[in-house]
Amino acid sequence: MSTQTVALDIMGGDIGPSETVPAAVQALSLLSQLKLILVGDQHQTSSLLQQHGLLNHPRVRFVHASQVVGMGDKPIVALRTLKDSSMRVVLNLVKAGEADACVSAGNTGALMAMAKCVLKSLPGVDRPALIKALPTLSGKRTVMLDLGANVSCDADTLLQFAVMGSVVAEKVEGIAFPRVALLNIGEEEIKGNDLVRHSAELLRQCHALNYVGFVEGDRIFSGDSDVIVCDGFVGNVALKTAEGVVRMMAQLAGYPRKKRTFLGRIAGFMFKRRFSYLNPDQYNGASLLGLRGIVVKSHGRAERRALCNAILLAAQEAKHQLPLQIADRLEAVFSDRDL
Amino acid sequence: MSTQTVALDIMGGDIGPSETVPAAVQALSLLSQLKLILVGDQHQTSSLLQQHGLLNHPRVRFVHASQVVGMGDKPIVALRTLKDSSMRVVLNLVKAGEADACVSAGNTGALMAMAKCVLKSLPGVDRPALIKALPTLSGKRTVMLDLGANVSCDADTLLQFAVMGSVVAEKVEGIAFPRVALLNIGEEEIKGNDLVRHSAELLRQCHALNYVGFVEGDRIFSGDSDVIVCDGFVGNVALKTAEGVVRMMAQLAGYPRKKRTFLGRIAGFMFKRRFSYLNPDQYNGASLLGLRGIVVKSHGRAERRALCNAILLAAQEAKHQLPLQIADRLEAVFSDRDL
Repeated sequence: MSTQTVALDIMGGDIGPSETVPAAVQALSLLSQLKLILVGDQHQTSSLLQQHGLLNHPRVRFVHASQVVGMGDKPIVALRTLKDSSMRVVLNLVKAGEADACVSAGNTGALMAMAKCVLKSLPGVDRPALIKALPTLSGKRTVMLDLGANVSCDADTLLQFAVMGSVVAEKVEGIAFPRVALLNIGEEEIKGNDLVRHSAELLRQCHALNYVGFVEGDRIFSGDSDVIVCDGFVGNVALKTAEGVVRMMAQLAGYPRKKRTFLGRIAGFMFKRRFSYLNPDQYNGASLLGLRGIVVKSHGRAERRALCNAILLAAQEAKHQLPLQIADRLEAVFSDRDL
Repeated sequence: MSTQTVALDIMGGDIGPSETVPAAVQALSLLSQLKLILVGDQHQTSSLLQQHGLLNHPRVRFVHASQVVGMGDKPIVALRTLKDSSMRVVLNLVKAGEADACVSAGNTGALMAMAKCVLKSLPGVDRPALIKALPTLSGKRTVMLDLGANVSCDADTLLQFAVMGSVVAEKVEGIAFPRVALLNIGEEEIKGNDLVRHSAELLRQCHALNYVGFVEGDRIFSGDSDVIVCDGFVGNVALKTAEGVVRMMAQLAGYPRKKRTFLGRIAGFMFKRRFSYLNPDQYNGASLLGLRGIVVKSHGRAERRALCNAILLAAQEAKHQLPLQIADRLEAVFSDRDL
């Protein structure tokens, strides 16, 4: 049985070790082939690790890092000055081959800047992209990218995103010949801006892709497509808007504005029961795709259960050797295009 | 007491006269100062109008139009060939001063093309924009524009949107000195693409605006801002994504996938009771802003209650003489900027 070693930044996120350490315990108990390298400040965390039985755990190693990236630190400053931060050290462990993947709930901008600098892009990848699997009405999940790594993209970049997203849908989500759609403001060919129309041409011409056309915002969660491609600005706005609506409805259901009535309590219970799988806190973990290594970003506000999901995602991507698969596919597709 | 005359395209929308005519009846009963000019095919609709008591109604006039714009018609074709369509005739009535505003649930692209051609833009407006009032957690509504009239915009256009949106928030929503935010992928000044950063500078320098900074997708419905400005591509994706999430949750609540259990029925009831004000079918009516006349677009799938809301919105905008207010404000702001 193969094992997967995941390096976990235990200092990252809004909450820090009090959530990341229990998440580690949970992930270890759920996945017997998982090994963890916990990276953080030894002085601050040793009693917590002791308390959770992780100091002498057979599948756990601890690596000390003297610095922490703050949630408000500028990426460029973090990149230059925080070379012994827990975030930087987990990336170094992946680069050195000591870990198969890494997970951090810290500052997104800093993580992206450090990851690109430490791990470098795969051949054929102009820009790494943030990808996430979203729940849909069909019960299956749809992967969507880019969710904010790039504020502006050209059509060639969106084509690369489509290819990378297809590999994730196949390998991680187990979908054969995944349907790829471009996010647009209408379904007809004439709709949209120059970028989506030009991208549509490229995707249609690419025989390695199962391109199915445009998809509008209201069909993201329908399950009609397996991979949704867009630039990072639009993708980030769409994802956050969806998360905002779900959180607003959860709040309305659980906490009526006027008073917590009997019906309000029932609504809160029903909401939790029926919609928990839509809650952004539950399907945690966005991957930075297109690098020579696996980097999973957990939500900064994630609690232990959500963090545990991010660790399991990293292990799954490691099991499928995702960067290798993406590199192979990109090579195959682009040599195909040159013919 | 002033009266408002609204021209209603009774042929428009996915459903047509069987919903638009009852909507007209409802609006007339709710608003005593409302007069309606119903525009459509006389042969097709006379028995329906008779049945609803609208043929000899003291506040209703009927105007025959021999053509109908189809939902699939290309805007440019509709503009050139459907000059006696119900959609075109309601716009002509506004231009001629016979109606104070018009409402159509027909083909959005055709309505925008015809409206720009027939009514023309106000001085100082480069591009008309689609605006809508959205429900928020605070109980008040936030207006958002552009929702899809323009797939790409420059910073000057977004500044005009901010000014026009402020007038709507003040006059229609009754908010003094409304807080204006730019939709972005982060709240810090360095976040986003060139368009939003440049627009932020212009909005900050404009003393006539109460500019409060960037807002992310997850805060659209928080009530933190009264006017949210973005380009039409991003706005359309955000709005449709939000609508898609609400519809998905309504469907999940009301119609459990496996079987309609007792708890499923309670959930459906609770959903309707608590979230009806978020349902996009309820807060219907987007206005095409920046023209020399009032044009309200109803959702194509809108039923009578939703259509009635669009008619009432048109009457309200007419009461406040919105185009005049916007023209005055634009003149004041831009002469201020020239000083």
